[in-house]
Parts: sequence; C-alpha cells; structure tokens
Amino acid sequence: MQEPVKAGLLGLGTVGRGVYKILRDNAANITRKVGAPVQISRVLVRDTAKKREVEIEPALLTDNIDDILDDPEIGVVVEVIGGIHPALDYVLAALERGKSVVTANKDMIALHGKELYAAAAAGGVDLLFEGSVAGGIPVIRPLKQCLAANRIQTVMGIINGTTNYMLTRMTREGCSFEHALQDAREKGYAEADPAADVEGVDAARKLAILASIAFNSRITVHDVYVEGITRITARDIAYARELNYVIKLLGIAKETADGVEVRVHPTFIPVGHPLAAVNDVFNAIFIRGDAVGETMFYGRGAGEMPTGSAVAADLMDAARNRLHHVPGLISCTCFEQKPLKPTGLVESKYYVRLQVADRPGVLASIAYAFGDKEVSLASVLQKHTDGEKAEIVLVTHRVREQNFQDALRLVERLSSVDEVSNFIRVEEEI
Amino acid sequence: MQEPVKAGLLGLGTVGRGVYKILRDNAANITRKVGAPVQISRVLVRDTAKKREVEIEPALLTDNIDDILDDPEIGVVVEVIGGIHPALDYVLAALERGKSVVTANKDMIALHGKELYAAAAAGGVDLLFEGSVAGGIPVIRPLKQCLAANRIQTVMGIINGTTNYMLTRMTREGCSFEHALQDAREKGYAEADPAADVEGVDAARKLAILASIAFNSRITVHDVYVEGITRITARDIAYARELNYVIKLLGIAKETADGVEVRVHPTFIPVGHPLAAVNDVFNAIFIRGDAVGETMFYGRGAGEMPTGSAVAADLMDAARNRLHHVPGLISCTCFEQKPLKPTGLVESKYYVRLQVADRPGVLASIAYAFGDKEVSLASVLQKHTDGEKAEIVLVTHRVREQNFQDALRLVERLSSVDEVSNFIRVEEEI
Repeated sequence: MQEPVKAGLLGLGTVGRGVYKILRDNAANITRKVGAPVQISRVLVRDTAKKREVEIEPALLTDNIDDILDDPEIGVVVEVIGGIHPALDYVLAALERGKSVVTANKDMIALHGKELYAAAAAGGVDLLFEGSVAGGIPVIRPLKQCLAANRIQTVMGIINGTTNYMLTRMTREGCSFEHALQDAREKGYAEADPAADVEGVDAARKLAILASIAFNSRITVHDVYVEGITRITARDIAYARELNYVIKLLGIAKETADGVEVRVHPTFIPVGHPLAAVNDVFNAIFIRGDAVGETMFYGRGAGEMPTGSAVAADLMDAARNRLHHVPGLISCTCFEQKPLKPTGLVESKYYVRLQVADRPGVLASIAYAFGDKEVSLASVLQKHTDGEKAEIVLVTHRVREQNFQDALRLVERLSSVDEVSNFIRVEEEI
Repeated sequence: MQEPVKAGLLGLGTVGRGVYKILRDNAANITRKVGAPVQISRVLVRDTAKKREVEIEPALLTDNIDDILDDPEIGVVVEVIGGIHPALDYVLAALERGKSVVTANKDMIALHGKELYAAAAAGGVDLLFEGSVAGGIPVIRPLKQCLAANRIQTVMGIINGTTNYMLTRMTREGCSFEHALQDAREKGYAEADPAADVEGVDAARKLAILASIAFNSRITVHDVYVEGITRITARDIAYARELNYVIKLLGIAKETADGVEVRVHPTFIPVGHPLAAVNDVFNAIFIRGDAVGETMFYGRGAGEMPTGSAVAADLMDAARNRLHHVPGLISCTCFEQKPLKPTGLVESKYYVRLQVADRPGVLASIAYAFGDKEVSLASVLQKHTDGEKAEIVLVTHRVREQNFQDALRLVERLSSVDEVSNFIRVEEEI
C-alpha cells in the first residue's frame, strides 16, 4: 500500500466541511482512483475550541498556519477560507514551499490569478481551482483538457445561483425584485448584504476566470463590464414572456475580430435556448468551440457538497500528480495577451421600455431618432396605459453599443418621451 | 522547442478528417498546451490513391498497418476506423508495442474494454476514448476526474442522435416513425440500415461504457436491456404531451441496493426535466452523484468536428503524458465486480395504451387485474373512439418490472380487452 498523500485544509466552513465529508465517506474509491489514500492531516480554523458541525478529531485542528506550511509531509494545501486576506498570503506561501494548492476562491483567482500561477510555476506545483466557478459543475477541467483542441468562440453562463433563483421566482410568480430578494434571504440563498450577487460582481469574477482559460489570455474582474439585476421589474419580465424570451443574468465572453468582450448583465434569451430552462439555484455554462460546436454544462453552482465535490476532485488530481512526480502537469494557459474590445464596439440587440405621450406621431419620432444613429427596430409593441400616456416596448436589431447609447440619448430628449424605463440586452445566439 | 510527439492515424473517414483538420488549424495552441507539437506522421487508409476530402500530403498515407506499428517514433495511435475488425487487432498490437491509443470506437470499447485496458496496463500506456460516447461532449474525463470523488448514483442520457432527431420530428410534427426515419435518411442522420440506431444497440454500447466508468465495475453491451423506438407511434407521442411528458430514447444506469441496472428504452420524462429540452441530433448526459447532486452535459453527439474535438483532446493528453513520462496516469477504474440487478426487480412507472370494449365495468376489470399483481394506477384516461370501442391510457405508480409484466398478462386475457397497443416506461427522477 502506498503512503498516504497528506493535505492541509485551510478553513472548515461550508465547503471545508463538504470536502472533509467526501474524503471520509468515499475514501476507499478515492484511494483506488488516486493510487494512494488522500488524507487531511491538518485543518486550519480560527477557533480550535468551537463546536463543529462535522465530527473531526480535535488534534487535527490548529489555529496556526505554520503548522501546515512548515509540515514537510503536507504536499497539498486546500484553501477554502475565501476572500483575499489572509487566503492569498497563505496560498502564496504554500506554493513557494513547493506544496500544490487547491482552492475554490473565485475572488482570489479572478484578481490574482497571474501572480498565483507564477508562484505555482516557480514552486513546480499544481494550482487547481475547479471549485471557484459554478460549484460542482465540471467546467474548468473540461475547458483545459476536453475542449483543449478547440478555439473557443463563446462562453455564456448562468454563474450566480442567488440571482438565478430570484429571476426564476420573478418569472414564475410575477413578483417584484424586492419580494424575490426577501424570498432568497429566507431560503438562505442570499446573504445579509446581497450586493455582490445582485450587482453582478460575483458573476463577473467567475466570468473573468472562465474567459482567461477559454481565450488563453489573462482577464481580470476589472476587465468585465458589469450590470446587476436590481433594475429588473416584474413588467420587464412580463414583456420578455410576451416576446418569447426569458431574462437571465448572464456572463458573456466572446472572442471577436475587434478583441475579447467580457460582460455580465441581465439578458433576454429566447425561450428555446438551452440556458433558458436553467432555473432556481442551478448554474449552467454554454460554450461554443470551433470544432465541438455548442456544448453546455449544468448543475448546482454552490453548496457544501457540490463545491466540495469539485475541490475533492482537484485534490485527487493534485495527489495523483505528486505520486507520479508530475505536479503542474497542466498549468497556466494564458499564453497570449489579447486586446479587450472597447465597450462601444460590442454588438447586441436591445429591448427598450419607454413611457410616452399617447398621441399620433410619437412612435414615428422615436423610430426616427433610432434611425438617425443607424439603429433599426425589429419589433415594437405599443401599450395604452390610459388616454394620455402609453408604454412602448421595442426590440432593436443588432447594433453597436455606441450607436445604441447615442440613439437613446436622442430619444430621451424627445418632448413626447417622458422616460426611458429600462433597456436590456438581447442575446439570440444559440 | 520540444521535439514533436508523433501520432499514427488509423482511418481517414469522417472523424479522421476532423482530427486531421483540428490538429492542422489549431496547431499553435495545441503545441503550447501540450508543450510540444503534436504531429500526425502517418495515416492508414484502405486505398492510398483515392481522392480525399481533405488536403493531405500523399507521402503520409499508407495502406500497411506495419508502417505505423513498426515505427518507433510513433508514440500514439489514433484509431478511427470503427467496428471490431480489424480495429481491435491494430489497437491491441499498438498497445503491446508501448504506443498509447486514442479511439472513438464504441463497439470495440463496449465489447473489449477489459482486454484493451489489460493490454494498455501491460504496455504502460494510455487508452483514451472520450470520442466513443456522445461525440464532442466531455463526459468520460468528467466522470474519471471531475466527478471522481462522488459515488455516482444515476447516469441517464440521450446518447443516440439519430433517434433523438426522429423523436423530435415526431413530437413537433406529429408524424409517424416511418416518416421520421425517411426524414432522418434524407438529412444524412440515419444510415441505409438504421437498425443499430432505431433498435437501441448503438445507445446500449455507449451506456455500457458510461456505466462501467460511473460504477467502477465492468459492464458490457450484453448486460444492457435494450428496446428501440420502432414501436413508438404518433398516438403515444400525443398522449405523452397530454400527460405532460415527452418521449426520449434514454440510456439509464443506476446503482441500487439490488445491483446495477442498465437499460436502453423509450421513456416518458416530465417536460420540466433537463433532458426533455434536448432536441434534434443533440445528446445530453444527466449524472447524479452523492456529492455533486444533479449535473448535465449537453452538445453534439456525432460528426466530423465534434467527435474530432474529443479525439484531438485525448491525443493532446496522451502526448502530454508521454512528454512527462507518465503514460497511463489515469487508467482503468473498474476495481469492483458489482452484480447486475435482475430485470424483474427493476422498478419503474409505466404508461400503457389499451384497446377495449366501450362498456361499463371494463375499466374496473382492468384496474382489478393490475391490483391483483400489486400494480396501482396513478392516472387513467378513457378515450372513446366509436360507440363500441374505446382506448384507455393509464400510468402506473412505481412498480417492479415482474409485477407489471404479470399484471399485463392478466389484462391481455380479459375478454373486454382487444389489444395492449403499447407500454412505455416512465422516469420521474429529476
């Protein structure tokens, strides 16, 4: 029997418990697949005296990171603390000491990926982070291995479970954003401060990670255009349905002739799109490659056991690579530096909802304003609200962002237009 | 620059051409990801003089397998001939000579997987076959690596594109099996002899491969219970819709307390199931693991470029493993020999369509016959066809196959029952 591969676990929160349980419950199979037992030999916690939700030998617990960093027997460090500090320092120290690192920390990878990969390369070790995007759904390894022969053209994903749950509620029940948020809080899907979720920042971090791998070019969270779902109303949801769309918060990354575009925003997608049926807290990532065509990866995007599943699998790979003396077998793939596409050049269709005066000629003046900036209209719905005011909903053809914004400014200035209530991008690609 | 890893390609048909094109068109990226160029240095064809649909240097072509087997520079053999003979002999010979093998040959893997893995282990090389199941969709490597920490409970997939295309046509247009088959032939999706597709054998081969990996126990195509779609009528499709189901040809593999069940048959699945929206020639595999929960992998299940994508990715892995001197890093995972569940013990719900006499008491006698074998009914629709005859459609609760078959025999013998027109299994699991 091979000597066990020893790992240090940083953090025993939700994901840490999941990893610990999986390694314990599926130990026999994991041992056979790796070729040696994989053993959590030390666990870093803030308070070693605290009562734990998982049964764990007290002697394994420590509140001193050096007990793990200085232990030469520990070959792999599993970081599931989250956040930048102190996780980043711990991980860098582990890599520098030649320990492979497995992490589920999207904040850290999306911001410090380059630095971390450099440290992993210097240490000659693995840096694996499947758990950082879309919980248990395999997507990073599929991109790095299974689809590696493709030139990836598009990555488009529902990568935030909280907002997908909220939009699902709003779509099914016609309720408001506030009501859906309250519901998500009660179910434990939304945190006390839901900003990172509802404002799209969480999705932007994950998209930065996916896009970096898909396009072989480093993209950080700062490169991502971000819009959250806070402006989505029950009315927009209802119009989406009437027009045969659903609204999803999508992370969209595309490689185009003008550069790479990376954006997170609420999006109209056709009801027949594979992503349209992804509901509740489920995540899914749609990927188009030049050879494989359209693929999609679907599953639970968060949680103790799903994310634990991804982290445990990475740990198995890191352990196997150590056993065979090939740590770092598959490492950073950001070989290129591709330009970002300027936001004004990004093309999309747009849904626009306007409050206008209900009199002849108003629609013509709006159409004229759009036309003036070369924005042509695909469909227009005029809804009478009372004798004096009307609501107009229109969908444009594909147009550059700059032209659309210019046209919108013209429309806003029309005397017959009271308000631009909302505009939402429309993605037709299947 | 590293020396190229040289590969011999056996076959230059649809998939072979795809592999060749992908390696040519994405060479720069492939080189960087592998760490060395991956080069097809020889191609085995039947007729070296034949005009090819892909531009290829004539000197690469050979009709003599020994030109590849005896070339010590060739480290990887890519087999895309298909079928058992001569592919099996060629692949075994390659493995014995210490060459890694990549194949998309489901027939061969489903029938000779054990023998092939033994040869790969003896030769100390890789045997990779992602392309053998579901074309370009990553599913074998996700099972072997990304979901490796899970105990897999269920694998349920649409893994034959031809029949999925036909069922999609039948569902959308209400057309007959024969019409759908004609359509599939005209589109090039069905072969001249469509038996392997429409009778479920092709799906059974792929299911055997998936189940072997999922449950770590060797399952061959002979272990799979197989029923095709030839008995599905437009009437069944219409009733499915009325009952809020769609009919799909599914491969279903489950591990239960009574053993492993593996079966391919037409199946009613709820319209809300992730697999229900998988249409046309698309494939999808739904996998449930104890940690990850529900996941699904979706994409194109066949074709030059999609299957080429999977084969090229395997070739990249095999090449990388050779470069790092770790061929066979991840090999056979059939560590156990799990018993198969006897067919009579397999549990399911059933849809049944009956032609009966239209008179009082008939329904009661049918319900009584089912009840006699402990089959309880979840729903019953009685449709009058004329004054004398009626059609009854019923759905049972979950029941053992043996009880259902016994009950059906009782029902068939009832004087008021003219015919059992069809019965189809119903899968509710989401």
